[in-house]
Amino acid sequence: MEIRALHFDVFGTVVDWRESIAREAAKLLSSKGVDCDWHAFADAWRSRYQPAMEEVRSGRRGWAKLDDLHRENLDAVLDEFGISRVDDTDLDHLNMAWHRLDPWPDAVAGMNRLKRNYILVTLSNGNVSLMVDMAKRAGLPWDAVLGAEVVGAYKPQPEAYLRNAELLGLKPEECLMVAAHNGDLDAAGTLAYRTAFVFRRTEHGPNQSTDLEPTGDYDFVAEDFLDLADKLGC
Amino acid sequence: MEIRALHFDVFGTVVDWRESIAREAAKLLSSKGVDCDWHAFADAWRSRYQPAMEEVRSGRRGWAKLDDLHRENLDAVLDEFGISRVDDTDLDHLNMAWHRLDPWPDAVAGMNRLKRNYILVTLSNGNVSLMVDMAKRAGLPWDAVLGAEVVGAYKPQPEAYLRNAELLGLKPEECLMVAAHNGDLDAAGTLAYRTAFVFRRTEHGPNQSTDLEPTGDYDFVAEDFLDLADKLGC
Repeated sequence: MEIRALHFDVFGTVVDWRESIAREAAKLLSSKGVDCDWHAFADAWRSRYQPAMEEVRSGRRGWAKLDDLHRENLDAVLDEFGISRVDDTDLDHLNMAWHRLDPWPDAVAGMNRLKRNYILVTLSNGNVSLMVDMAKRAGLPWDAVLGAEVVGAYKPQPEAYLRNAELLGLKPEECLMVAAHNGDLDAAGTLAYRTAFVFRRTEHGPNQSTDLEPTGDYDFVAEDFLDLADKLGC
Repeated sequence: MEIRALHFDVFGTVVDWRESIAREAAKLLSSKGVDCDWHAFADAWRSRYQPAMEEVRSGRRGWAKLDDLHRENLDAVLDEFGISRVDDTDLDHLNMAWHRLDPWPDAVAGMNRLKRNYILVTLSNGNVSLMVDMAKRAGLPWDAVLGAEVVGAYKPQPEAYLRNAELLGLKPEECLMVAAHNGDLDAAGTLAYRTAFVFRRTEHGPNQSTDLEPTGDYDFVAEDFLDLADKLGC
């Protein structure tokens, strides 16, 4: 069955959240006299991402969009780092740094090539406004912004993948999940999605220890989006 | 409050459904030996659009996406015109003609100008795959495909407008509804959307009798999307 749509993981696969968040945190908080290891700050903020979504996935709390989870997690990280006396307006602005993440250098050029032959959609846990603002700023040429908030489920819940395909009128077999994360590809593959692993060896910085290699039998393994475009004949 | 996003009605406002449907129906059905007034056929098919959605809006039936309503309505129109012996594969293809509607001549150029300064989203009763396929074929540069299927409500239900704004993280006052239909603009305006009437004097053919003039006190009245771009300073 022919691939019709590419469903992209976004954080880490399309955009470099760690450098972007470290840069924005440094800019805002150093202007308030705060000093710390900004990459450690970014890592600490990101480390609260999965546990926060797990509260929703488990049903222990009702639906909450990622912007709201990020904002709660920011408060917790500030406590953890002993940072106080930053006003809410500044923190709301810092929280929106997730809407201003920079793409990996190959991402836009690769996506523009892939877009010629395929439908490109988000299959991210980020909410719609986050994805729209990010795309607008970075020039990401999505055909549609789908994902968690639209489908009402956080990856890796099966509904997230199944509903994303269904909204496009496609069978999972007609969809290619593109991600830098084995777990995401494994969840999609189990549901009959085709799979493409993309190397992002510095998503977690120079000492990254996870997702350095594909661990599953994926349909495609690509160095970056340009290589993926080559492999898909775009 | 500054306008941040333009929410577009699509059928009639962005695309010329009548000519496109008449052309596709003529092509498919004349090859089967059927002859009829193809514009009348298109009008008859479209005339069943609002009653079908009203079944959903009223709660008399559960959610059904527009593709499915179109398919049921096609069967009814074929009966009405006494057309039989067309097989399901051909009818499914004809039903997908709604995914292949042509834009008005100014639409793509106007939207590309508007996209520089604003977020452009669909606020259509068409389902996601219909909007994505149409955009891909016609080159409509949406920032996001939202609307009925994503928000779970058919216009003019208030939830359709309110949820579309909310998904973008915007207040209705930051949203401009763009439509060629007074009823759509009135429903949006009541909910604090800003409003732009665009003339589409031949949506219903040369003898159109509705929506020939704006009947409300709208924020903008534009000849077409290029004129709207002028008026919005794009």
